[in-house]
This record gives sequence, structure tokens and C-alpha cells, in this order.
Amino acid sequence: MESFPEPLERLVEELQRLPTIGPKTALRLAFHLLGAPSEEVQALASAMVEVKEKLRPCGRCGNLSDRELCALCRDPRRDPALLCLVATARDLLAVERTREFRGTYHVLGGLISPLDGIGPDQLRVAELLERLDSEPIREIIVATNPTVAGEATALYLHRILGARSLKVTRLALGLPMGSDLEYADELTLGRAFAGRREM
Amino acid sequence: MESFPEPLERLVEELQRLPTIGPKTALRLAFHLLGAPSEEVQALASAMVEVKEKLRPCGRCGNLSDRELCALCRDPRRDPALLCLVATARDLLAVERTREFRGTYHVLGGLISPLDGIGPDQLRVAELLERLDSEPIREIIVATNPTVAGEATALYLHRILGARSLKVTRLALGLPMGSDLEYADELTLGRAFAGRREM
Repeated sequence: MESFPEPLERLVEELQRLPTIGPKTALRLAFHLLGAPSEEVQALASAMVEVKEKLRPCGRCGNLSDRELCALCRDPRRDPALLCLVATARDLLAVERTREFRGTYHVLGGLISPLDGIGPDQLRVAELLERLDSEPIREIIVATNPTVAGEATALYLHRILGARSLKVTRLALGLPMGSDLEYADELTLGRAFAGRREM
Repeated sequence: MESFPEPLERLVEELQRLPTIGPKTALRLAFHLLGAPSEEVQALASAMVEVKEKLRPCGRCGNLSDRELCALCRDPRRDPALLCLVATARDLLAVERTREFRGTYHVLGGLISPLDGIGPDQLRVAELLERLDSEPIREIIVATNPTVAGEATALYLHRILGARSLKVTRLALGLPMGSDLEYADELTLGRAFAGRREM
């Protein structure tokens, strides 16, 4: 648009690269930033750059960390016998939010997906096997998504971990809390039946 | 959340200050930035800071500009006899997008709103009167919102401009394009009747 001063146009363009941000939201955000105190804009800009500069994968579990070991791996209260396998650091955060799990994690860095050219070698499986040799892990909870890629990854891991004296478990499948049977898809409802538990 | 490394937590916090960005979107954007190329993140961050540093109101019309006069005021093809009054630079951009108007603008910097403590003195009315004395303006199009504040501002401007030999017009009120009579509110439909035009 010809009436946009160049710095504004550039900001709107850059904002539009972000997910969920369309042209209208980008313009709205740009005008918000224009009207916001300089310190606030500066704080946001430097937080963006710093997150890129300071965060790297934890040397042990692969979680995001600003030190060699992440806060979870440094925490002596976490149970080293329980290991939760997740695809990404985002999934790890989702599990942490439940406050149900007090063990440690291992981030695979993705899911097996032959169509995308991602096989076991692209995941942090070798690191997992190393940890199994050196840490007192008794149970592995495979917390990958209940999707084709997540199931394929879970099956693969179950196969290579089967030979070890380990308990390998998988997250329960069933009805989500607060949902309505009437609207549940048949696959989910079928899994809920198959996985029913005594009350 | 305890498992967030500090730089990530800070970024999520800063992102949440933006309008339309809630905790979930902030997290999603933060992870997107984490995964994006450093140059892209750097470009966004500097675009934000630059928009604050480089843009200021145009010395003539009050539009956003990176120079003393904005691109519209520098453009000799704009008709200096037509002046469109808008509340904000955002409204100016909305009018520009229509490509219907080829005159110049004057940004008031807000609307009269006694409840918010904004009277005519807080708006760029003195600058408008100066321009009327020095520029060959024949028609003023009052393009304020059809809201209580917009109407109050339009009425006030009409009153102070009435003594001059000027045509003062107001944007048409009526049904929005593509809308459905059945769902139009009665005020809008009433204005559409009152403003009906011969075909």
C-alpha cells in the first residue's frame, strides 16, 4: 500500500510471517506497537532475540534450556527411575502442566514419518539408549501423540526397547474430560471401551 | 511454569501484552520464533524497534511518516482542494485502501469524548484551521466513525467550520455491501432509508 511509510510496511510484513497472524492482525499489532511505550517494544524485541541466542537443547534430555542441563534434569527431586518419552519440548511442557509426572524426560526431537523423510536415525534414539545404559531407569512412558506418526514411533520404540528388562507403557486413550459420548468419534469411543477400568 | 527456561518465559510474557494474543497463542508464537531462522527473528525484532524510532506524525496532515512530510503530502497528484478529516492514521489507511479518494488528509488524533477527558483542544483542530487559512481547500469530508464520539466530533467540526465558505460533507450511512436486510440493525436500515438515492 503506497501510503504506508516503509518502516511500518516492513513491520507488518515481518509480523505476517508468524503463524496465526494474518494481514489484519499484523496491522493491528503494528499499530499497537507504534502506540506502546518504547521500553515495552524494546523488551519484546530483545526477548525474541534472546530466546534464539540463549536457549539450546539440554545435554541430557533434549528439553529447552539456558544452561548445559535443563531445570528438570538439575532437580534432584525428580524420580530417575521414570522416563517420559516425548516428541518435542512443547509436548514436555504439556505433560509438566498436568503436575502428574515427577520423573525425567527424553525429547525425541520429532516422530517417525517416512513421508517427511524422518526415520529413527533423525530422532534422539541413540541418546536414549545411552541413557538407558547409564541411568537407573525402570519404566519408560511413551507419550507420543495418538496419531499415525505417534503410533508408529511408539511401536518402533517398543520393539527396540523390548529386549531390555524395562516396563514400557503408553498414555491411556479414551474420552477427553468434559466431552460428550454423543459427539465422540468412533475410534476414540472404541479405545475408551477397550481400555475400560474397574471402578 | 517451573519447567520454562527463563528466556522463553520472558518472551511468552512479552508476547501476551499484545492485543489478540492469549497465553496459548503466545506459546505458539514463541516456539515458532525458537524454530525460525535467526535472521528472520532479528528482522522482526529490528522492524519493531525501527517503527518506534523512525515514524512520527507528518508535519502537515498528522499521518505517520518517516520524513517531515508524509508520502501523501509529498505527492503532487493529490488534489489540494479536497480534505478528508479522519480520527487516526489507521482510519486514513482504511480510506486510502478504497482508492476512491484522491485529495489530502488531516488526522485529528482522536475523537471528542468527554467521558475520556478528550475535548476539541486535545485534537489537531488548531492545525486544521491554520491549513484552511493557507491551503486552497474547497471541500471537507468528515470521515469520523458513525459512533457517538464520531458523530459528536463531526457535529462540532461542522459548527466551527460552518462560518467559512466551504462545503462540509459526511460519509454516507447505509447498508454495508453484501449485507442482508433481514439482519440489518434498525438504526442502519433507518439511515439507509433516510439517505436513499435516485437510481
